[in-house]
Amino acid sequence: MPPYRIAVIGIGKIARDEHLPSIARDPRFTLAGVVSGSGASVPGVPTFREAAALYAAVPDLDAVAICTPPGPRTALVREALAAGVHVLMEKPPTPTVGELRDLAAVAERAKRVVFTTWHSQYNAAVEAMRARLAGQKLGRLAITWKEDVRRWHPGQDWIWQSAGFGVFDPGINALSILTRIMPEPVFVDSATLLTPANRAMPIAATIAFTSPALAPGGTLTAEFDWRQTGEQTWEIAADLAGGTALRLTGGGTTLSVDGTVVEDAPRHEYDRIYARFADLLAAGTSLVDMAPFELVADAFMVGRREAVEPFLD
Amino acid sequence: MPPYRIAVIGIGKIARDEHLPSIARDPRFTLAGVVSGSGASVPGVPTFREAAALYAAVPDLDAVAICTPPGPRTALVREALAAGVHVLMEKPPTPTVGELRDLAAVAERAKRVVFTTWHSQYNAAVEAMRARLAGQKLGRLAITWKEDVRRWHPGQDWIWQSAGFGVFDPGINALSILTRIMPEPVFVDSATLLTPANRAMPIAATIAFTSPALAPGGTLTAEFDWRQTGEQTWEIAADLAGGTALRLTGGGTTLSVDGTVVEDAPRHEYDRIYARFADLLAAGTSLVDMAPFELVADAFMVGRREAVEPFLD
Repeated sequence: MPPYRIAVIGIGKIARDEHLPSIARDPRFTLAGVVSGSGASVPGVPTFREAAALYAAVPDLDAVAICTPPGPRTALVREALAAGVHVLMEKPPTPTVGELRDLAAVAERAKRVVFTTWHSQYNAAVEAMRARLAGQKLGRLAITWKEDVRRWHPGQDWIWQSAGFGVFDPGINALSILTRIMPEPVFVDSATLLTPANRAMPIAATIAFTSPALAPGGTLTAEFDWRQTGEQTWEIAADLAGGTALRLTGGGTTLSVDGTVVEDAPRHEYDRIYARFADLLAAGTSLVDMAPFELVADAFMVGRREAVEPFLD
Repeated sequence: MPPYRIAVIGIGKIARDEHLPSIARDPRFTLAGVVSGSGASVPGVPTFREAAALYAAVPDLDAVAICTPPGPRTALVREALAAGVHVLMEKPPTPTVGELRDLAAVAERAKRVVFTTWHSQYNAAVEAMRARLAGQKLGRLAITWKEDVRRWHPGQDWIWQSAGFGVFDPGINALSILTRIMPEPVFVDSATLLTPANRAMPIAATIAFTSPALAPGGTLTAEFDWRQTGEQTWEIAADLAGGTALRLTGGGTTLSVDGTVVEDAPRHEYDRIYARFADLLAAGTSLVDMAPFELVADAFMVGRREAVEPFLD
């Protein structure tokens, strides 16, 4: 029972900016340790180089939050479940869809909670848009997710490698909002992936989707681009078949309806994530949401590649 | 109860070569109709241009077998479930992984059976190899799947398009055997996809996998190639950590152990598929096996593309 003793594995930017502050603010959690392969430490908290040392030194640990890049996450989750602790996973949860489905099964056998966080789902405006789309048919939904990779991922070489997903790293945030707000499932119909000649992963992509929620002749599209300098855009615009125009902007923080702002709250994603995790722990229930990740894999599978000019960081 | 009244949707090569003969041989099925958009017909059986006409004209239909190319399959399965009939699906079941997971949910809600057939799983030698791998660690497993696309897919342009999967169309047969025989799950670690400059889908691929079933230092690889003239190879070779050498050849029909053939039966894939379908119908249980398809999507997602010379049919 609370407070749950939690450790954070992987002390990088997302752990310091979001996880540690949200854990500190939530009375249902207490930070019992951190694990950092590079030796980063947090004042007043036991620090370990490897997760195995954490599990040996803190035997009454309840849970870990895994904030490393996705590459080693599968092994870290298996190790955590074997050590008997519950697991919260940063996005994207694993390098592959197959590993994620398997982890759900492993967690079930271990009778431990696994929680795949898709942080962009946890804003009030996202829930407000979901409520407005419930039971509706859509004439058009367009995702525009355009940002400057040099500004948001300076020198992060891993995002260009296999489990980094390229522009789908931010793009999956948009897709996780999409699967949360849509009243029916969404499937990839076609995609074009623009890939720099010197990189394995795409720098831009366009995707066309199908959904039973589309009105006849309706369209559902996404445009991701990492080459956007100047104004940055993270927006989902939807026209209901009845005529209402919805616009979710600021990466899911602001909702306007026919031009009038109806919801505009500051980002509280990670506070809501830890509140949800505490609820899941209390209920003993896992939440493994595969839908955003499947859309990414499907876009890569059906997508047509086009080579574009080399990207130099 | 048997005999189940079944119709075949999509009267192409696979329906004529395999499905119709196996249905004719199985006393638990009787052919009640066929649907062919191109107007192909089967003597003595009602033929329809569209599935809707089938459901209107044959109201006591129990099931359909969907043998069209994958593009329209999702809509056909939804239509069949809405019409209240059970569904057998040729491989690959849907154009995307997301659609397959959704169809499983739709079938559950409709209380109808959906059966994703991966035909290469249904040979006696595959079951024999599965039995020999049970509980074992592997030092090496190597899939070699090399065939001449001009010989096996003459003029089939759809295999080069999005839902055709290129060389993964035969490759998924190997992967479906792999997921059937392995004692533990298998995940994609890395992949290289060789794609002709004038095509969207790969003509060859190499994949490296991980698995908890590998011994330390063990390797699990696949090599798919559609440019193989002369001898055609569909083989899975495995060395147990204890030293035994297993070789599954002929696309899963022959198993040898340390050089001695221990199982060599003619292909009876589709007879076994229909026997299994009848069992599933009797039990009211779906079988939606996503593992082979997830491996394909994951290989496309993590894979590095290399352009190769244009392919002209």
